[in-house]
Amino acid sequence: MTAIKDSVHDHIEVEGVALDLLDTPELQRLRHIKQLSTVRLVYPSANHTRFEHSLGVYHLASRALEHLGISGRRAERVRAAALLHDVGHGPYGHQTEDVIQRHAGVHHDEVHGLLDQGTVARGLRDHDLDPSRVADLVAGDGEFGQLVSGELDVDRMDYLVRDAHHTGVPYGTVDHQRLVRSLQFVDGELVLAAGNVQTAEGLLVARALMNAAVYRHHVSRIAGAMLERASERLLDAGVGIERFRRMADHDLLAALRETEETAELGERLRDRDLYKRAVWAERDAVPDGLLDLDYAACREREREIADVAGVDPETVFLDVPDSPGMTESSVRVIVNGTIRRLDEQSPLVEALRAAGRTRWRLGVYAPPGDVSAVGDVAARVLGLDDDALLTEAERRESSFDD
Amino acid sequence: MTAIKDSVHDHIEVEGVALDLLDTPELQRLRHIKQLSTVRLVYPSANHTRFEHSLGVYHLASRALEHLGISGRRAERVRAAALLHDVGHGPYGHQTEDVIQRHAGVHHDEVHGLLDQGTVARGLRDHDLDPSRVADLVAGDGEFGQLVSGELDVDRMDYLVRDAHHTGVPYGTVDHQRLVRSLQFVDGELVLAAGNVQTAEGLLVARALMNAAVYRHHVSRIAGAMLERASERLLDAGVGIERFRRMADHDLLAALRETEETAELGERLRDRDLYKRAVWAERDAVPDGLLDLDYAACREREREIADVAGVDPETVFLDVPDSPGMTESSVRVIVNGTIRRLDEQSPLVEALRAAGRTRWRLGVYAPPGDVSAVGDVAARVLGLDDDALLTEAERRESSFDD
Amino acid sequence: MTAIKDSVHDHIEVEGVALDLLDTPELQRLRHIKQLSTVRLVYPSANHTRFEHSLGVYHLASRALEHLGISGRRAERVRAAALLHDVGHGPYGHQTEDVIQRHAGVHHDEVHGLLDQGTVARGLRDHDLDPSRVADLVAGDGEFGQLVSGELDVDRMDYLVRDAHHTGVPYGTVDHQRLVRSLQFVDGELVLAAGNVQTAEGLLVARALMNAAVYRHHVSRIAGAMLERASERLLDAGVGIERFRRMADHDLLAALRETEETAELGERLRDRDLYKRAVWAERDAVPDGLLDLDYAACREREREIADVAGVDPETVFLDVPDSPGMTESSVRVIVNGTIRRLDEQSPLVEALRAAGRTRWRLGVYAPPGDVSAVGDVAARVLGLDDDALLTEAERRESSFDD
Amino acid sequence: MTAIKDSVHDHIEVEGVALDLLDTPELQRLRHIKQLSTVRLVYPSANHTRFEHSLGVYHLASRALEHLGISGRRAERVRAAALLHDVGHGPYGHQTEDVIQRHAGVHHDEVHGLLDQGTVARGLRDHDLDPSRVADLVAGDGEFGQLVSGELDVDRMDYLVRDAHHTGVPYGTVDHQRLVRSLQFVDGELVLAAGNVQTAEGLLVARALMNAAVYRHHVSRIAGAMLERASERLLDAGVGIERFRRMADHDLLAALRETEETAELGERLRDRDLYKRAVWAERDAVPDGLLDLDYAACREREREIADVAGVDPETVFLDVPDSPGMTESSVRVIVNGTIRRLDEQSPLVEALRAAGRTRWRLGVYAPPGDVSAVGDVAARVLGLDDDALLTEAERRESSFDD
Repeated sequence: MTAIKDSVHDHIEVEGVALDLLDTPELQRLRHIKQLSTVRLVYPSANHTRFEHSLGVYHLASRALEHLGISGRRAERVRAAALLHDVGHGPYGHQTEDVIQRHAGVHHDEVHGLLDQGTVARGLRDHDLDPSRVADLVAGDGEFGQLVSGELDVDRMDYLVRDAHHTGVPYGTVDHQRLVRSLQFVDGELVLAAGNVQTAEGLLVARALMNAAVYRHHVSRIAGAMLERASERLLDAGVGIERFRRMADHDLLAALRETEETAELGERLRDRDLYKRAVWAERDAVPDGLLDLDYAACREREREIADVAGVDPETVFLDVPDSPGMTESSVRVIVNGTIRRLDEQSPLVEALRAAGRTRWRLGVYAPPGDVSAVGDVAARVLGLDDDALLTEAERRESSFDD
Repeated sequence: MTAIKDSVHDHIEVEGVALDLLDTPELQRLRHIKQLSTVRLVYPSANHTRFEHSLGVYHLASRALEHLGISGRRAERVRAAALLHDVGHGPYGHQTEDVIQRHAGVHHDEVHGLLDQGTVARGLRDHDLDPSRVADLVAGDGEFGQLVSGELDVDRMDYLVRDAHHTGVPYGTVDHQRLVRSLQFVDGELVLAAGNVQTAEGLLVARALMNAAVYRHHVSRIAGAMLERASERLLDAGVGIERFRRMADHDLLAALRETEETAELGERLRDRDLYKRAVWAERDAVPDGLLDLDYAACREREREIADVAGVDPETVFLDVPDSPGMTESSVRVIVNGTIRRLDEQSPLVEALRAAGRTRWRLGVYAPPGDVSAVGDVAARVLGLDDDALLTEAERRESSFDD
Repeated sequence: MTAIKDSVHDHIEVEGVALDLLDTPELQRLRHIKQLSTVRLVYPSANHTRFEHSLGVYHLASRALEHLGISGRRAERVRAAALLHDVGHGPYGHQTEDVIQRHAGVHHDEVHGLLDQGTVARGLRDHDLDPSRVADLVAGDGEFGQLVSGELDVDRMDYLVRDAHHTGVPYGTVDHQRLVRSLQFVDGELVLAAGNVQTAEGLLVARALMNAAVYRHHVSRIAGAMLERASERLLDAGVGIERFRRMADHDLLAALRETEETAELGERLRDRDLYKRAVWAERDAVPDGLLDLDYAACREREREIADVAGVDPETVFLDVPDSPGMTESSVRVIVNGTIRRLDEQSPLVEALRAAGRTRWRLGVYAPPGDVSAVGDVAARVLGLDDDALLTEAERRESSFDD
Repeated sequence: MTAIKDSVHDHIEVEGVALDLLDTPELQRLRHIKQLSTVRLVYPSANHTRFEHSLGVYHLASRALEHLGISGRRAERVRAAALLHDVGHGPYGHQTEDVIQRHAGVHHDEVHGLLDQGTVARGLRDHDLDPSRVADLVAGDGEFGQLVSGELDVDRMDYLVRDAHHTGVPYGTVDHQRLVRSLQFVDGELVLAAGNVQTAEGLLVARALMNAAVYRHHVSRIAGAMLERASERLLDAGVGIERFRRMADHDLLAALRETEETAELGERLRDRDLYKRAVWAERDAVPDGLLDLDYAACREREREIADVAGVDPETVFLDVPDSPGMTESSVRVIVNGTIRRLDEQSPLVEALRAAGRTRWRLGVYAPPGDVSAVGDVAARVLGLDDDALLTEAERRESSFDD
């Protein structure tokens, strides 16, 4: 057994199969993937990695299994899955999720191929664990898959707290010790014991506050759009998707800078020399049709805008985010002896969803010099309500350091 | 100038009139009044006092004034008011607020009489400050009164964070540094600068989460009901209201134990040997008429219940709390160049209010042995919906250590 | 099982005999005894109590026993002793230790009498535990007594961290999780596993830094001297030692104020209206003979000084502290396969001892107005080196808020 | 003015010249240089960068200048120097300090050339600041140079606290708020005001504890030796020193992997597949002559050992560290009205130096498979005392996760 010092959980005790997995290249690679990718352009302290997060998830899984009274091979399998749950991530984590989905046709939580070979497979088999069943758990399948990937998974208990800790915002309202102690299985469903409506609400509130202040901060979204488009061009320029998927953050940044088609974006990202918002439109100002554009249609609109505005078509980015997720709203809690979904029980769910909608924005980004020209044109081309042309002052609202 | 170490703000620099006020008996008395009174029966770490809180409020006021560019005598007056804002509190702070209101006919924020005499008055006058104008600020009057007592006052910025810190709950979602830096006066109104809707929401969320987990925890409410009734009996037994108001926590506890009529309640409070819930009814189960009972009518119902149940009429306590306050919902923020109230702007206000209503409970408390007998009778006497007779298991919901 | 929220250890799980002991008057009384007694006159945030500290010690004992693989009745006995280890303390904890020793002839760690009766004895016997063997553990007797009271006990692991946390000083250099995980028994001796020289040094350094900044702060020492002398006079005035021993902090404060002979000191303590230093002499300036004065001889000197200075003999206090303790220096660690005492292994032990000696001061305290007169006389009467008459500026050195 | 959220200082207000410097490539590059380089192989959470540290140093410098009453252009110059103080660092910071010194002949604190050109120079000149005078301050020259680089500089106040925070060790015993408030100039010397011997000792203790637990952890030293040797080979393979100096961490790692001569070491560093200790010898076991070997002589010994042991001469690394620095021992504090150096005043200085010597080790590292063979040979070749051949168990002492 070894104990590793962690900034969130203090000491994390690592033992069994986890000890053997710890030094595999697959896991060590996560040291080079930041947990919050482009967010650190807004919050300079947010440099924590998916490696330490994976250790944290492993730690919480161990505690939860202890509490649930699960031991032996079944527990070892869950612990392995907890530790390995992020090995499928591409460079910059969620920022390249869609790129990988489009080009490789798979989600980064699908890791059967990765676990089934090399040192990870060897490590698992040495402990009599079937890589395929571990990969199932990572995908959230099976009863215990809920603990690894579901609305009550230990993943979110770790990252909500860790992300708050490292950005420095006071929004980590997650009582993870209590959550872990309150988990129980009822008819194969993972639920929270009675008396925990508020504990669950804390999870939900953390999600909502973190979405607004951190995960969806506009500076991070701009950088994310630049990164996604640059990644597409890198793949177009001939870098294979398989090589791309296994890059670490800095590999991608280096590849962008060394490839002619993406060099400028790569340098801008490295130096935080970012595009600015030309349009920043509330939901009400956006025609419904714009919400479901697929990737190709989106690119088409960008070209149209650039064309009318008379700027380089490669430098206009349209960013239409999904509605903010609220997986936590389906957390189940025992209330008065019956299992209730949090959204049946708590008025907060709908309100936080509404607050999320209020903060939702469609963005069009361009190099600082083109922002005025592109903004006016984009509103027309996209058929946005005139009021969507925010003033300069409004554009800066809720920006911390831009 | 002196610097005092504080667990929340690190070093607090004290200077000017504050230095002279610090060692007055009025302020030193606050060392002996716990900030959270009976809450520490649930959260054993919550032993912080109104003295350190007053220093914290003084500190935030100083920072806010600095940011607002206010200096000189006007600033000194506000700082004095910030430091002195709680000197009017009775023993156990808010728990005796109603008792004092009923018997002395004044609110504990009315401190003209207190500041106008003795060492405090001398200290203020030595610095050319008019005690009466300082007392006005404590009451929230005038432009700067908003900073001392209002929906954006530095009082709540300190206590929401401090109470979370000392109870250990992760709910202090208040970014006080940002709040203080974002304050501005517009036409005499204290508002938050543009870009701070979420900062204000953080304040609101902290309030709601703290209400549920801490301020309105049922164990604290039971103890609070015992304390309030015991205080009434103490006054009936001849202790004068003026003496009562100036007691510290332990003076009241000692007086209760030494007075025949209140000795038992005093010992129970000291030893955490508390009454239990006989009834714990949701809002829907409670007839509207019960919500506005005045003190005498409330006592009358208690006697009725005791009578039918055949128990000592002094041992049944009916607790009908107000709706949880949400002062923070009227915080004003600049949005798109105009001043908006938070409840116009954020769907969270209504939802948190609704969540508060969901958690509201009418309680009837009695000694552990009488709980079943009293519970059944009380439901009938009060005309509560049958469903209000919660099972034992439900009664324990959301209790941390009872 | 119940879980209690704690500001240092987050959740503390309480079960078994501890659950029954928790609500005994003996343990609840510790809610009313501050951990740091008069230190809070310097650090206003330091209001934590021996109750929460006892829970913390219980928590660390549980973790240590788990790690050591001890369970069953033997473990239960240690856990009970950990929870109860401070029930013998008088009001204001260590500040009345000597008074109780002189008048009752026993140390406050001798608790056989207390555990052998009432609800505590009942609670212990209900769990098949012998009160007398639990009291042995509290006194540090037997193999497991080392865990409760010894140089590696969980008591100091908790209080060094807790006291730093609540005062706000950055000196809690104790890695308690690592310490607890590194404990082992070798031939009946409690030692630290190999690789922990620095972990032990952290304990030692915490002790030394806390001694200087907190435990021996001169303001706390002045208040402590006032409290001790007032306690003596209270006993002289007829309060019995048995009643005295069972008081809580506020009982003592109230008794002082209500007794004619001690009323003034009681009010001064309540209002932080303290004596000042008339003399503050380094070790080198103090004749050896002064170091071993017994209590009576000390009082004699005080009267002499007062007599020559022409002031009230009841208002001059001579304070000759012991050398600062360094129990931690005998911690044993495994180094190169053998057990070594920390003072054999680490040059820090001697240096910290020397630093402690450098900071040692003999004090003479008097009411502010008498300080100059008393200071000059005291130096002569006590035969102090002339250089011991520190200037006013020097007197304030290392004072944070006096 | 903008405010940036920081995990250590909460909000950092940035204004004036700093706002213009913030987005220069020179400063943005520091986002890609980890503050603790190879330490994160031991402490997975230690991923903070020189960028956020630079902001922290800027913040403390601002506070110190405010306290010292310095404003205007002189203050602006110091703030600029504080923000820019690390721009001269090579990849992996201190780990390549010697490489750069040997090949470029300059120390990384010599930044006249860097500040005198490009956007940094432009930014400085726009604010009427002379780049050359700012560079002087970075080098520690002049009265205010002491504040930027000296034994009482704000650099160490930030990094000791920040490094403790991010590794998670409880050793950041630096009361930076008090330090900054206690700075004063006496005859051009930066000293601490009276009453701060212990504050200074806290700085010293932090340094000593951090040296042992963090900065000189053997796993970090092994990785550091690998990195240094690989860097030398990279330069030998033709990468120019000027290009090398301006690399970020990941540029160096990529260059190592892409260069044939260094590819293996590069991959090992990326994957934490490190060499192990073949020798780990205490000071007493090491002949004096070994302490002053220059770089070439050191390499010569490595080849000798490899030759005798029959292993690849490129895979044996000899690591002879300097004595641990104790710059803090020359901090000056006012004591009894005169300025004293801390090492004259505090016995801790000598003891911590001695403790540092006790922990000093000469290391010989080799691939895991060669460790036994190389160890025996190395002891003979280097003339080490036989006792220096530590057992396997001893080798692991004080290692947290190796």
